[in-house]
Amino acid sequence: MTYDFTVDEPTRELATRVRSFIDATVIPHETVLSSASHGMPDELRSELQAAARAAGVFAPTAPVEYGGLGLDHRAISVILEESGRSLLGPAAMNCSAPDEGNILLLEKVATTEQKADYLAPLCAGTIRSCFAMTEPSPGAGADPEMLSTTATRDGDDWVINGRKWFITGAQGAGFSIVMAKTEAGATMFLVDGDNPGMRVERSLHTMDVSFSGGHGYVVFEDCRVPADRVLGQVDEGFRYAQVRLGPARLTHCMRWLGAARRAHEVAVGYAARRPMFGATLGELGMAQQMIADNEIDIAASRALIWQAAWALDQGKPARQETSIAKTFVAEAAFRVTDRAMQLCGGSGIIDELPIARIYQDMRPFRIYDGPSEVHRWSIARRSVRHAEAGRLPGDWM
Amino acid sequence: MTYDFTVDEPTRELATRVRSFIDATVIPHETVLSSASHGMPDELRSELQAAARAAGVFAPTAPVEYGGLGLDHRAISVILEESGRSLLGPAAMNCSAPDEGNILLLEKVATTEQKADYLAPLCAGTIRSCFAMTEPSPGAGADPEMLSTTATRDGDDWVINGRKWFITGAQGAGFSIVMAKTEAGATMFLVDGDNPGMRVERSLHTMDVSFSGGHGYVVFEDCRVPADRVLGQVDEGFRYAQVRLGPARLTHCMRWLGAARRAHEVAVGYAARRPMFGATLGELGMAQQMIADNEIDIAASRALIWQAAWALDQGKPARQETSIAKTFVAEAAFRVTDRAMQLCGGSGIIDELPIARIYQDMRPFRIYDGPSEVHRWSIARRSVRHAEAGRLPGDWM
Amino acid sequence: MTYDFTVDEPTRELATRVRSFIDATVIPHETVLSSASHGMPDELRSELQAAARAAGVFAPTAPVEYGGLGLDHRAISVILEESGRSLLGPAAMNCSAPDEGNILLLEKVATTEQKADYLAPLCAGTIRSCFAMTEPSPGAGADPEMLSTTATRDGDDWVINGRKWFITGAQGAGFSIVMAKTEAGATMFLVDGDNPGMRVERSLHTMDVSFSGGHGYVVFEDCRVPADRVLGQVDEGFRYAQVRLGPARLTHCMRWLGAARRAHEVAVGYAARRPMFGATLGELGMAQQMIADNEIDIAASRALIWQAAWALDQGKPARQETSIAKTFVAEAAFRVTDRAMQLCGGSGIIDELPIARIYQDMRPFRIYDGPSEVHRWSIARRSVRHAEAGRLPGDWM
Amino acid sequence: MTYDFTVDEPTRELATRVRSFIDATVIPHETVLSSASHGMPDELRSELQAAARAAGVFAPTAPVEYGGLGLDHRAISVILEESGRSLLGPAAMNCSAPDEGNILLLEKVATTEQKADYLAPLCAGTIRSCFAMTEPSPGAGADPEMLSTTATRDGDDWVINGRKWFITGAQGAGFSIVMAKTEAGATMFLVDGDNPGMRVERSLHTMDVSFSGGHGYVVFEDCRVPADRVLGQVDEGFRYAQVRLGPARLTHCMRWLGAARRAHEVAVGYAARRPMFGATLGELGMAQQMIADNEIDIAASRALIWQAAWALDQGKPARQETSIAKTFVAEAAFRVTDRAMQLCGGSGIIDELPIARIYQDMRPFRIYDGPSEVHRWSIARRSVRHAEAGRLPGDWM
Repeated sequence: MTYDFTVDEPTRELATRVRSFIDATVIPHETVLSSASHGMPDELRSELQAAARAAGVFAPTAPVEYGGLGLDHRAISVILEESGRSLLGPAAMNCSAPDEGNILLLEKVATTEQKADYLAPLCAGTIRSCFAMTEPSPGAGADPEMLSTTATRDGDDWVINGRKWFITGAQGAGFSIVMAKTEAGATMFLVDGDNPGMRVERSLHTMDVSFSGGHGYVVFEDCRVPADRVLGQVDEGFRYAQVRLGPARLTHCMRWLGAARRAHEVAVGYAARRPMFGATLGELGMAQQMIADNEIDIAASRALIWQAAWALDQGKPARQETSIAKTFVAEAAFRVTDRAMQLCGGSGIIDELPIARIYQDMRPFRIYDGPSEVHRWSIARRSVRHAEAGRLPGDWM
Repeated sequence: MTYDFTVDEPTRELATRVRSFIDATVIPHETVLSSASHGMPDELRSELQAAARAAGVFAPTAPVEYGGLGLDHRAISVILEESGRSLLGPAAMNCSAPDEGNILLLEKVATTEQKADYLAPLCAGTIRSCFAMTEPSPGAGADPEMLSTTATRDGDDWVINGRKWFITGAQGAGFSIVMAKTEAGATMFLVDGDNPGMRVERSLHTMDVSFSGGHGYVVFEDCRVPADRVLGQVDEGFRYAQVRLGPARLTHCMRWLGAARRAHEVAVGYAARRPMFGATLGELGMAQQMIADNEIDIAASRALIWQAAWALDQGKPARQETSIAKTFVAEAAFRVTDRAMQLCGGSGIIDELPIARIYQDMRPFRIYDGPSEVHRWSIARRSVRHAEAGRLPGDWM
Repeated sequence: MTYDFTVDEPTRELATRVRSFIDATVIPHETVLSSASHGMPDELRSELQAAARAAGVFAPTAPVEYGGLGLDHRAISVILEESGRSLLGPAAMNCSAPDEGNILLLEKVATTEQKADYLAPLCAGTIRSCFAMTEPSPGAGADPEMLSTTATRDGDDWVINGRKWFITGAQGAGFSIVMAKTEAGATMFLVDGDNPGMRVERSLHTMDVSFSGGHGYVVFEDCRVPADRVLGQVDEGFRYAQVRLGPARLTHCMRWLGAARRAHEVAVGYAARRPMFGATLGELGMAQQMIADNEIDIAASRALIWQAAWALDQGKPARQETSIAKTFVAEAAFRVTDRAMQLCGGSGIIDELPIARIYQDMRPFRIYDGPSEVHRWSIARRSVRHAEAGRLPGDWM
Repeated sequence: MTYDFTVDEPTRELATRVRSFIDATVIPHETVLSSASHGMPDELRSELQAAARAAGVFAPTAPVEYGGLGLDHRAISVILEESGRSLLGPAAMNCSAPDEGNILLLEKVATTEQKADYLAPLCAGTIRSCFAMTEPSPGAGADPEMLSTTATRDGDDWVINGRKWFITGAQGAGFSIVMAKTEAGATMFLVDGDNPGMRVERSLHTMDVSFSGGHGYVVFEDCRVPADRVLGQVDEGFRYAQVRLGPARLTHCMRWLGAARRAHEVAVGYAARRPMFGATLGELGMAQQMIADNEIDIAASRALIWQAAWALDQGKPARQETSIAKTFVAEAAFRVTDRAMQLCGGSGIIDELPIARIYQDMRPFRIYDGPSEVHRWSIARRSVRHAEAGRLPGDWM
């Protein structure tokens, strides 16, 4: 039998639990989100994580031996969408960026000792982490080849120098995974949060505010790291980045799809009740068009995420699938939220509904994890290469 | 394990055969398509159908006992996309509209005798058929409640009076399935092609030309039909229409997705070779954007079709899924073709490439089988009803 | 000679002065804008208004006898676009909403005494004002017929009861123009800021923050207003609202076009300098597409504003023209800002560039002053009425 | 007084006459347009041109001394929009492409003798002409630098060799203006229709059919042209092309805007009458949205055309203005026609309404006269250069 969209019972049951958890336990705390600070206070985070553990929904992407649910990419796609219905959900369930991507990377690349020191507490939620790759101009951004932070060997240590920005979660992170240029490539390093050679110079004031630890501007000045804190092989950093990037951009899609769905839920509920022009808003044609387009965008987003998650589960790099999903979902989820806002009129732009918050937090996703333009460039290049090789672009085979 | 996008081996093998058949046997005949006539000449149709039979790709949607391949909706989705890569493909493989939808309807609703008389020759390709529902204004169109053709009982016969238009395949059809208003609803009738009470007054000159038999304006004047030619139960016509409409709009999507993919293939091949501004066209950013957007639209279209096909295979009516797929695919496949045309510049609008032909044939699909606006209206109404019932709009559960 | 796009010398000279004033005097203060408070501090406002007066750019829309520049709608279109290049510009120049619209309304409708009491200090910038029409659901919003605030005559006074929201500038306003339902229509009242029957219950937390006095939720409880504070005739409020609404929505367009242009200026400057993929960002095709689309949207926005301003200067109500301009500009200016943000990547979403601030402030404009959907509804109805009357829709005559 | 949108009385009066002429005299002949042939038969063309002369609407762009109306670009913008309401209108009024552009070019560049031989009969409508610049790949297309047709001096003659395609009006043209590569640039030549060295190898089968003489594939084989048939100076061809291209792309916009308006007129009339879902189509929200968007696109298109026409009348090259107008109008006029088609449902795609014909004829305009992508590239480059030069992109000054 060819393909199957059935969500199996265990996943469905877990999703139901997550949905209840988000609705009953997380959403009531959303008022803590404000434009004045990033993420939620540490105490609330701990409290919600304990509740998530009690509800059996904690750390869905983490390995079982580290206390996680050990889900595959497909089950993750279902669960993380549900977690995203609140901007606080992923942190509450310990499956937010960048920790969730770092868990995946460490699981695949770290040594046994590194796992004990970094992966274990990260899965347990006792520490947060960050992933320090992006650099201010001129440096590694859309074009990773422009990496300018360097690491040079000095005795048993490596010495890192450079500047990074948009380092999500930097403030208060227990450790950072830092990408630096080495002799014949790039190398990843595990840098402890209290390393005196690394400092968060400032937090960037961004449109979005839901990420714990904000987005840091991080400076490395003669930052010494012992050689056993190299993550994986020297000079292989770009390869590991690929290991992380595909899945990490996909989990972003899942969470943001959940957030877009939340905005849509709120807007449809509003349209169903709001009297206007002798009918309800939801009976007016232009409102119906927005509602329908939201349903279409949500369905298409989910289908592309699922397909890419399945491809990852087949052990494929799935770069075309994850790039397609990332580009489409970042734009579609934003459209959904934008329409939800428009549907709610004035109510949509004040913080009594969650839509404005979701809106501001979601817009940057068209830039984070590869701007749409860079993904389109990759997608097109693969398509042209297919044609040049005599294969069919747009093919499913 | 939750969901699975694997296309199984038999389907994949069949698809490969279809692809070869289309490329080697059908595409060389595409020059017969011209704006002066609809579809291909009968002899060519017969010749290609024989070739399809020989290649083992004939009548993929027809039941095995009538010589078809008896595929389920999922396998159909894969095979009909491949058939659509040529505008002649579906007719060559006897899976074109409206025959393919009529085969499905007859299989589900017809009596044994009706199956012998109508379904068998239709599956064999010895006759064509049509489905006479749409009426000129004021009559049943986007709003089926406006049905104005009537059937009244007279002794052992029914007598049909009214006017229909956009009756695809009417000219030369062996029989028609005719929808008419009866006392307590609507009823479907099997009307033979040589019934003197029915005549094709004229063929409509439409933008599209690939449908055999064109789009007829059909007049029923005291058209007598024996009572045993009622299809299913009297007054139950709208219910049967639903049986046919969901799958039929989805097979349309499959074929048109194949056509859009073909346009994309041609355009990417062109872009890969065409020198421009010191590079190839395919290396220029704005061209890459169009190519990438095509890949995204194709992937999303396919994923939505597959999901709806799966839902139909679960025995669900899948109205939301098929409406979402129809709306998205009709628009996305057109966008793909439009971009393919733009990519090819002047070459895209002349008939040396197949793009202009596909373009003109595809545009009406945003109107046929329910205009996008009517589907959006349905989708939105279901979404609002979900909200009113305390369920979540945009949900996957 | 038929039509003429020449901007005359006095206007051009004034625009040049405004441009210098904004660049040199206003933009350096933009850092005061923060999401924690609305508008700028009163002292800064006073300081900038003094500077504007000194620069000869103060109160461009106010009558000359009240110290303004007394410009017509056309000159206003040029000058207010320039003022909008900073979110602080319009307030600095005393041509921001809602004061600027209230000045227009008072000039047309107020009695001599009312002008002395309200118009004069408003033009001088010694007080701010607000316009209290919109109500929370169910009440007057997109559909003004749902007006629920009432005013009843009691002796020499009127007594107002009801609730309003999104009352821009309410906090700290010297007076409000309040729309309330009266026996045979709606009536406008001038309510002093210290009237004990009116209170700003709270400020709405909105996405936008540049409006002085924020957006208030205002409660009227037995708010007594002397009969000589009726603005214009009793029961004629809807007619006066029209007098104000057309021009006021157009000045909004002018200011927001200036803001969009600023975002575009910043983004093009960034693209011209930013190295990427071996070129500058501005040489990459997808970036060029965004830059070109911005130029197109800006040019079309300006042309539609100018045309509507000209129509107002001819003494026409210009409802179709102002609705078309409002709908197009609100969406186009937002697209421009969105593309500017995307062009700048990470830099676009942090507050070191002004784009994110403009973005958040501009999004609500698609809802304020009539959501796009309500304007489209009006535009379409006029178009259909034209056709019904035998005239040509889309006509220029 | 700054800017003015008044259409003066003489232009308005002439436009009224054109409107009557198109409605009463031209539209009744539209049924001659068929996909089997290009343009209208010569006799009909002569008959309609005589009628246009009688109505005082003939050759609006031609100089008065050659029997034309000698209008400036602004008056042309009004009149050619009206002419375009029928696809036959511009040919009937002798202001169709490419003749109208050639008239302009000859007037500016031709010698007195050349004017007598070529301009005079062209203005009189006794002959048609063509403009042979575009070449099949690899050759001059979107990138004019790839010009491959050559002209070499041989005694008193020039000898042209090469291939051209998309040469509108080639079949039956009295003469061609041919662009060929010469030693230090490109040169334009006047080649008589009966020159044995030039032949129309075939007519391209394109989507559009309204151009008299079709789009030819033209071959030059040792085509000898006397030296006095060089148009302007040797090697200055690209400069003259610019003289022609700006205005010619703008007149295209005017005519197509008229065609789009016609489609809109038809669709609004249809929507006003068509009963649906218990209302008329024109009262349904999604239909209203399409109608309103059409009004907006038409208004914005016209405003951009007018502004560019005014700039040309100021003697400016107006490249940014004409590129912006061309890009926007080609896309907007197509959107208008697409929505008009969708509004009319099935009726929109059959040839009983003129919409499908307009649709197919208009689509290529996004490619002709510079594809949208090439114009965007030019627009963006100018914008970036402005920024680099310290000027403001998006500026009106």
